[in-house]
Amino acid sequence: MAIQLIECTPCFSEGRRHDVIDAILNPFRTTPGCHLLDHRSDGEENHLTISLAGRPGPVQEALMAAARIALETIDMNAYTGLHLGIGAVDMIPFAPVTNISMEACTTLARDFGRRLFHETEIPVYFFGEAAIRHERRCPADLRRGGYDLLKIEASAPKRRPDIGEPRLHPTAGATAVGVGKRPLYFHVNLRTADIAVAVKIAEAVTVHAGGPCHVKANARAIEDRDMTQIRFTILDPAVVPLYRILEMVRMEARGWGVEVALTDIPGMVSAGAFIQSAAYYLQAAGFHLDQVTELRLLAAMGDDT
Amino acid sequence: MAIQLIECTPCFSEGRRHDVIDAILNPFRTTPGCHLLDHRSDGEENHLTISLAGRPGPVQEALMAAARIALETIDMNAYTGLHLGIGAVDMIPFAPVTNISMEACTTLARDFGRRLFHETEIPVYFFGEAAIRHERRCPADLRRGGYDLLKIEASAPKRRPDIGEPRLHPTAGATAVGVGKRPLYFHVNLRTADIAVAVKIAEAVTVHAGGPCHVKANARAIEDRDMTQIRFTILDPAVVPLYRILEMVRMEARGWGVEVALTDIPGMVSAGAFIQSAAYYLQAAGFHLDQVTELRLLAAMGDDT
Repeated sequence: MAIQLIECTPCFSEGRRHDVIDAILNPFRTTPGCHLLDHRSDGEENHLTISLAGRPGPVQEALMAAARIALETIDMNAYTGLHLGIGAVDMIPFAPVTNISMEACTTLARDFGRRLFHETEIPVYFFGEAAIRHERRCPADLRRGGYDLLKIEASAPKRRPDIGEPRLHPTAGATAVGVGKRPLYFHVNLRTADIAVAVKIAEAVTVHAGGPCHVKANARAIEDRDMTQIRFTILDPAVVPLYRILEMVRMEARGWGVEVALTDIPGMVSAGAFIQSAAYYLQAAGFHLDQVTELRLLAAMGDDT
Repeated sequence: MAIQLIECTPCFSEGRRHDVIDAILNPFRTTPGCHLLDHRSDGEENHLTISLAGRPGPVQEALMAAARIALETIDMNAYTGLHLGIGAVDMIPFAPVTNISMEACTTLARDFGRRLFHETEIPVYFFGEAAIRHERRCPADLRRGGYDLLKIEASAPKRRPDIGEPRLHPTAGATAVGVGKRPLYFHVNLRTADIAVAVKIAEAVTVHAGGPCHVKANARAIEDRDMTQIRFTILDPAVVPLYRILEMVRMEARGWGVEVALTDIPGMVSAGAFIQSAAYYLQAAGFHLDQVTELRLLAAMGDDT
């Protein structure tokens, strides 16, 4: 029987204390059937983002173990950092990889949210496909203002948790649990040191200036290299493929006589995000992901392998 | 423990009798741990090519079962078809997918060749990385002239099998067993009906005119559509990426005022072949296959999954 595989990219409000980060990562490293793919922590942001994949059961077991460690080690009242998280276990987004439907992922997220509250008393907000309230579909909306604001507002009807009493956990805050792909990060380096030009180009490739939805961008200088960089966050890479972003940048940059120097894709990406761009540039419009040996094999692998 | 996975693209000298084709395919469909990904048969060529992937043990068991069926049902002396194969089981190329080295694949191919001879008395020639004689590295060289010529020449020292007596099996001929990726097929449609132009462009993108090695091309008319098509066979897709073929076609076509209409990639491809082209066009030179979630997951999956 084919194995169900999911991806999960939880984040935690701890980017500085290496012993705590290590303790949180440990269940993901040691639970058979749960695979730790990547993790990034940032001291200034004071934030830890993890990429996991594996079977639903083991991934959830490891998440519960990590949540218990975060509950014991992170006090949101003592939190200092740029990232506006709402809790020690800030966010848990599940996404399907293979042999599992979006509906099954939603059920899984809802069940996990209930279990998280039951075992830790951390209240839960549901987002994405798993949202119960429509206005909570976007995790940025429900996490607006971060822990400090939510602590005050959690008792108001509009902001009360989906699971739990209308207040936050005294030290661990709340957790957003839902269904959603990890955003894709795409950095484009421009052969211009003029930050004003980079800002104009960045703006043109976001929804503010007629560009695609689901894309955020900001421009910054790369001072030691006489260049600028636009950092894109693509919230839904299935809807906005990478090639479309890059070609829009090239189009806008031509108007300023500027060229793209290089790009950078940090972290994990799904095969689909890359392959749809390859098909575009190769003009192979009829190409299908089923033609990729490794993807077929991953989907076909089961208990007998 | 991580599971070893290989790919295998065997071909058989039967492209017409559907009952025989079905019987040959059956072991690949029913052996747990061996996954049938794709198969193509051609009546004119009278040839069947299969794509398999899975664990080495089950893949080899299924191959032996299919070879026995081919031995019983295909008589090379009665063969008619355009494809110049050397035997009922014409060719068995193994290739690594994940968690297995080229060396281990070579050992596997040599062991399988010995077993094939031992159990069926079909003599075996080794090719690719598994070649024992250097001049047999390329399977086209050792299969030169097909069954009819090899039947005459197999007793000559230069052409005798690597395993078995210096003669072919009376009905099943010989089998080439080795290590090698399946060639990648890439069809490029040109907006010109002028076959002479298509031939010129095709020639310019092969080794004959300073183009890349490992690439064969031929041009043909697409009569009902006022276009022509160049059909590329890329023998080593890891060395000659798709983007390089396409960009060379575009470059040559510009000289004739001709544009690429569309391309087509028939059959299975490896993720790497596609992703290296995406990285080129997206100018993401630092991108690594390890950043693709599905590929990491495939490599990480093991007995515990």
